[in-house]
Amino acid sequence: MTEPLRIALAGLGTVGVGVVKLLAANRDLITRRAGRPIEIIAISSQDRSRDRGVDLSGFDWVDDTTALAERAGVDVVVELIGGSDGPALTLARNTIAAGRAFVTANKAMIAHHGLELAHAAENAGTALKYEAAVAGGIPVIKGLREGAAANEIAQVYGILNGTCNYILTTMESEGRDFGAVLADAQALGYAEADPAFDVDGVDAAHKLSILASLSFGTRIDFAAVATTGIRSILAGDIAQAKALGYRVRLVGRAEAVDGALLQSVQPCLVPVSHPLAHVAGSMNAVVAEGNFVGRLFFEGRGAGEGPTASAVVADLIDIARGEYGPAFAMPVASLADPGHADTGNRVGQFYLRFTVADRPGVLAEITAAMRDAGVSIESMIQRGEAPDGGVLLVMTSHIGPERNVMAAVGALGGSASLIGKPMVMPILDV
Amino acid sequence: MTEPLRIALAGLGTVGVGVVKLLAANRDLITRRAGRPIEIIAISSQDRSRDRGVDLSGFDWVDDTTALAERAGVDVVVELIGGSDGPALTLARNTIAAGRAFVTANKAMIAHHGLELAHAAENAGTALKYEAAVAGGIPVIKGLREGAAANEIAQVYGILNGTCNYILTTMESEGRDFGAVLADAQALGYAEADPAFDVDGVDAAHKLSILASLSFGTRIDFAAVATTGIRSILAGDIAQAKALGYRVRLVGRAEAVDGALLQSVQPCLVPVSHPLAHVAGSMNAVVAEGNFVGRLFFEGRGAGEGPTASAVVADLIDIARGEYGPAFAMPVASLADPGHADTGNRVGQFYLRFTVADRPGVLAEITAAMRDAGVSIESMIQRGEAPDGGVLLVMTSHIGPERNVMAAVGALGGSASLIGKPMVMPILDV
Repeated sequence: MTEPLRIALAGLGTVGVGVVKLLAANRDLITRRAGRPIEIIAISSQDRSRDRGVDLSGFDWVDDTTALAERAGVDVVVELIGGSDGPALTLARNTIAAGRAFVTANKAMIAHHGLELAHAAENAGTALKYEAAVAGGIPVIKGLREGAAANEIAQVYGILNGTCNYILTTMESEGRDFGAVLADAQALGYAEADPAFDVDGVDAAHKLSILASLSFGTRIDFAAVATTGIRSILAGDIAQAKALGYRVRLVGRAEAVDGALLQSVQPCLVPVSHPLAHVAGSMNAVVAEGNFVGRLFFEGRGAGEGPTASAVVADLIDIARGEYGPAFAMPVASLADPGHADTGNRVGQFYLRFTVADRPGVLAEITAAMRDAGVSIESMIQRGEAPDGGVLLVMTSHIGPERNVMAAVGALGGSASLIGKPMVMPILDV
Repeated sequence: MTEPLRIALAGLGTVGVGVVKLLAANRDLITRRAGRPIEIIAISSQDRSRDRGVDLSGFDWVDDTTALAERAGVDVVVELIGGSDGPALTLARNTIAAGRAFVTANKAMIAHHGLELAHAAENAGTALKYEAAVAGGIPVIKGLREGAAANEIAQVYGILNGTCNYILTTMESEGRDFGAVLADAQALGYAEADPAFDVDGVDAAHKLSILASLSFGTRIDFAAVATTGIRSILAGDIAQAKALGYRVRLVGRAEAVDGALLQSVQPCLVPVSHPLAHVAGSMNAVVAEGNFVGRLFFEGRGAGEGPTASAVVADLIDIARGEYGPAFAMPVASLADPGHADTGNRVGQFYLRFTVADRPGVLAEITAAMRDAGVSIESMIQRGEAPDGGVLLVMTSHIGPERNVMAAVGALGGSASLIGKPMVMPILDV
């Protein structure tokens, strides 16, 4: 039998336990596909005593996680600790410096330090793999890095956070507001006690910055992602969007605007005819539009024990086969600067929602602001009461620059006619 | 600059011209992603004089296609001639025997001779790649061979023939019968003058046999694919299916039944809630259900110049990067015998349509045959006239073995109550 690929596993949370289970359950199949056995030899986690429901007795327990990097006999370290810095980053640096392969599901670390780690891996002649960091079980890193590699990508976008999609599709099906659905999701364990990372779009932005680099051949630029979460979405927004033929999704999107890269994470209106409109619950999906392949659509489970473990072990099989190369599809030195696109230059249709006082003149004030900013209105609905006593006024614009829409909204700032902040969402063009 | 990867291109039809265009249009990007330039150096096709709308003057024209295999300086031969045997197969054998990499879009040749060629490539230490052979631009070979490699696959299925899907979805949207829509599709160039390969399911069966091998780790067994085309589907079938909440799609499906592999290509009823129900026109889609990842869904263009060229060049980039291994994910010697499953053992719900004479006793005769065969009826619709003067009687069964359904239909064979052959379609379980 060929030499096994020997793994040290750092982190025994949900995903770590999933990797242990998967390698045991599919052992024979994986050995055949990988060409050799993949064996965990050492593990490390915070709490040795906790019962995780899997047999860990065959593995060496290592108290100092970062020591896995240089442990004798280890070919690959799998990092499932999380956190952009701290022990995860130390472990990554040390593992690669020791010339060993490194596999991670850590989107925050890759978004912040991926280029440094990829460069180190190139120099060390080893692998840095992170399929599980984006869209869980969907092989979208591979799909972009390899499957769509022949294409210039015009845009890549998708539903990258299952918690937000669960909340939005539950708001949609149950007609309830964000806060109530979030509280239920927390009680059910679908959302964290501190949900900020998910619902404010940070997690999706981490993932988007990675997809953008692979799609456009540019350096990861997480700081440039214009990020808006889903806290301000009302049940009324979802209902009005539906009446207009749309669904509301949190969409991460990277596109070329003025020859530069525009990265955004924000709630969008998606036409019901678009595949993203049918992505329900905690599913994830990614669309890539290439200049030869056209639209590619990938959908699957974006999180959880099984799907994430599936992606981690896919990376291990690639490494066992020796089928890997530069982490971001090309040497870090070949990655271009993404430039800085102005979101104001982005052209499209927009959804605008105002919560207004129910008195004469309000409509005239708002429509005048639109006219003055050069925003042409396609449709308008004034219907139903808003949660805070006003009424909801919803409109969609004709195609035009985002700058004008934001100018109109800005001009209305401080108006006594408005109750609370207006909501603006782009309408995804199919 | 690193040495280029030098290509000889056999066949300059739609896809061959697409490869020439793609390598020219995306030259710089591909060089960055592949780590070195990919350059066509020699081409061969039947008709040298035809204007193909691309500049071929920079390539050596070779009259004897099979001579490309041993031409000096060639690293990879790309075969886009087609046909399971003949010059394509000779070229494949000679190229691999010469130790050069071989890339093809030829599903028929891979279905019939893929194992022989893969074995030869293993012995020669070179690459055999065929991403374009299944589902055009969708990276589904890669998705199964690598992306889902950690999983035991319970079933893989999909819409693998764009011509059939175009015909079925046009029948659905326009309410017309097969023959009329086929004639239009032929006039528009969407269907071949001899459409048998597409509409009788042979093309989809070639592709399915390849997906099955990758998914189940079994030897390709094209002969075992139970194949039914779409010629017998009436507009009335599609209308009744719709009334019941389903759409009709030609589905290629490989699943484990009784520990053996069951491969089929046949029209199926797909619930509107299933992603395959939303695959319209000439699009292709593949679903794989893994024991850890859950359901993965891939959708994109299954044919045409750009998408197929995208898949061919993705293979070339893998070869340029040195990221390739056994063609069927593991050495041919490791592939298992698929065994022989009996379709009669397959359990599910079924759609049955009878064209019946409009006279007393017919319904009693048919329902008695169902009862005697142990088929429990879930719903029944008798409505509308059939094209040949009778009326359509449509029913769906409760879950039960396919054997019973076929026995009921068999028992009605020759009955004077029936006009023409009954139609049986499985209902896809979500």
